[in-house]
Amino acid sequence: MQIITLTTDFGDIDPYTGIVKGVILNIFPYAKVVDITHNISPQDVWQANWVIESSYHYFPHGTIHLCVVDPGVGSARKPILIETKICFFIGPDNGIFTGVLEKEEVLNIIELTEKKYWLPDISQTFHGRDIFAPVAAYLAKGTTSKDFGKPLQKEELVKLPTNNFIKNEKGCIGIVKHIDRFGNIITNIPDSNIPNKIYGKFKNIDFKGLISNYSEAEPNKLFAIKGSSGYLELFINKGNVAKVTNAKAGDKVEVRFENIVVK
Amino acid sequence: MQIITLTTDFGDIDPYTGIVKGVILNIFPYAKVVDITHNISPQDVWQANWVIESSYHYFPHGTIHLCVVDPGVGSARKPILIETKICFFIGPDNGIFTGVLEKEEVLNIIELTEKKYWLPDISQTFHGRDIFAPVAAYLAKGTTSKDFGKPLQKEELVKLPTNNFIKNEKGCIGIVKHIDRFGNIITNIPDSNIPNKIYGKFKNIDFKGLISNYSEAEPNKLFAIKGSSGYLELFINKGNVAKVTNAKAGDKVEVRFENIVVK
Amino acid sequence: MQIITLTTDFGDIDPYTGIVKGVILNIFPYAKVVDITHNISPQDVWQANWVIESSYHYFPHGTIHLCVVDPGVGSARKPILIETKICFFIGPDNGIFTGVLEKEEVLNIIELTEKKYWLPDISQTFHGRDIFAPVAAYLAKGTTSKDFGKPLQKEELVKLPTNNFIKNEKGCIGIVKHIDRFGNIITNIPDSNIPNKIYGKFKNIDFKGLISNYSEAEPNKLFAIKGSSGYLELFINKGNVAKVTNAKAGDKVEVRFENIVVK
Repeated sequence: MQIITLTTDFGDIDPYTGIVKGVILNIFPYAKVVDITHNISPQDVWQANWVIESSYHYFPHGTIHLCVVDPGVGSARKPILIETKICFFIGPDNGIFTGVLEKEEVLNIIELTEKKYWLPDISQTFHGRDIFAPVAAYLAKGTTSKDFGKPLQKEELVKLPTNNFIKNEKGCIGIVKHIDRFGNIITNIPDSNIPNKIYGKFKNIDFKGLISNYSEAEPNKLFAIKGSSGYLELFINKGNVAKVTNAKAGDKVEVRFENIVVK
Repeated sequence: MQIITLTTDFGDIDPYTGIVKGVILNIFPYAKVVDITHNISPQDVWQANWVIESSYHYFPHGTIHLCVVDPGVGSARKPILIETKICFFIGPDNGIFTGVLEKEEVLNIIELTEKKYWLPDISQTFHGRDIFAPVAAYLAKGTTSKDFGKPLQKEELVKLPTNNFIKNEKGCIGIVKHIDRFGNIITNIPDSNIPNKIYGKFKNIDFKGLISNYSEAEPNKLFAIKGSSGYLELFINKGNVAKVTNAKAGDKVEVRFENIVVK
Repeated sequence: MQIITLTTDFGDIDPYTGIVKGVILNIFPYAKVVDITHNISPQDVWQANWVIESSYHYFPHGTIHLCVVDPGVGSARKPILIETKICFFIGPDNGIFTGVLEKEEVLNIIELTEKKYWLPDISQTFHGRDIFAPVAAYLAKGTTSKDFGKPLQKEELVKLPTNNFIKNEKGCIGIVKHIDRFGNIITNIPDSNIPNKIYGKFKNIDFKGLISNYSEAEPNKLFAIKGSSGYLELFINKGNVAKVTNAKAGDKVEVRFENIVVK
């Protein structure tokens, strides 16, 4: 019962997603292909990194995560396979696995160079089909990680900068990490070791927290809550923070542990 | 071959859908997880109710329908499991199962209180992951309904108001129940026991029916047809009723059985 | 391990997709239902044809491709099953299988007339549910093509006009066949037998090619590249051709093999 998950920016108006599924099932029809999302914003490696790091650890051990957000397709960026203690990741080496590399014990990293596990003809625009999908299928079918190419060191991989979070005894400053479908702001501020009462500012709007659940908050006002993924979240009950504040990924979020302005 | 369907408002840019699938497959890898939709409008319990009541009965007996449109997550609203004669429903008690409760013979209703079938840590914002998904997986794996908590009576459940349909010998008045992707209007007027010739008014536009199929209707004019789900539908051949009329769920639809204005 | 793929214009806010899956699994629970896309633009037979012809051949032999983009539902257009040497196609006879018929050796074409393989009640608006889905399921379960109805000849089928491509020794003129999610233009100009250096014009903008990969191209300028599906593609590195040029399917694309204007 080998699971292969798909996280891509292929969208849903093109044949690309279907093609990748076809390639996998043609090599290994018993694979259980599971869509995570195909609607990562085009070429948005930050969003891809967030979706991958937030979801992989819920899947059974041995799951293969195929992730294709690949603005550098056809260029010198490396196609890679990461084997951790619990699962596998396949995709381009462009930072989309930054969160995984921070959290997981890595056993093997392989640069995919062994062409016998690729499709016979390699395009310059669709390695998801030509390289990543067949490698995922052969891995599911039983090929060993090391057979797919040559070993790389963790230090050689591309990582997205993630040191944009500052905390001291008075509060912390972080950024918007992700805006979800509901317009809620997911920050990069870990919600552990934070007082139950906090005060903050986002886009010049003051907020308070922590609220115990969405529907207890006064409507149309900004509040903070412990999010479901371990980070502080900003929300408006019956509203959409992102629309109201015109927020975007990277925007600054300030949190104070006491109701005094941090100097 | 245990099927679990998913109907949610998680959308397709977040990790939420993938996480729910991961939780299910981690507990019971043999489950056949089937997406119905993840694009219910955010927190729209009416639309969720419509999608659920229109689709569940086509699935094999024993199917588990996991439905998470949950504006009250973390509040006092109850997490429930409904076992009917033919299948199971799991989700929040907020009205999304109104249509199911009207149509099906209910065997058991359980408030989900038994924490050993939940994830170990329960967030206040994502019970789809923490409660509903694991319960669905354990149910698929063989746990009995009654083991998940304590029994509820049908009368205790939240229901959406559905008595907004009037019929007499001259005609009927109903509302827009759903607007589909094609801009067609699905009303709440049952298309059984309706004459073959009807006349009506919607948003001050007169329409006639019943037309035998979409492509036989004069283009760019409003017509009525028997819909695929047992309700009267309004459509424009090669057009989009919803856009042309600016229709929304709840708008009034008037139907006359003879070409005389009902007084 | 019988695969049934789905390509439809049902979108993702309605119960239609879920219903089709339910009908299939109710008849044959062992089917492996694979979403290609449900977001073909409403009733766009051209886009459907492109998605189908670009993806089917990647799937294992014996795969059943269920394709429902059906503006003429309920009218005289025929419901058909096409059996080729490698796989099966089920859907309306309205041109969506034009590319398949050009490329594949056809063994049998059947007009679906045998009602015992349909749902008991046939609507005039949803043959995807009532005819196509059950036929796909019974085919997957083992029924022979010929049992579903009466044979048709290839010449009787509806085909989309595809002779809109001219080539001589100086260059070629084609059209925009598809615009993908990234705004890239896929033309109908085959990229085989084309020189490595070409010059062209699209919407009064000059372009050059062939570029070896997206990221090597000078940003914000129009270039041509060999696409992943065997046709010439126009793209802008870090940009969106379709938005910049307001392109749409059918727009003319001119290519010269030397840097001299073709007279």
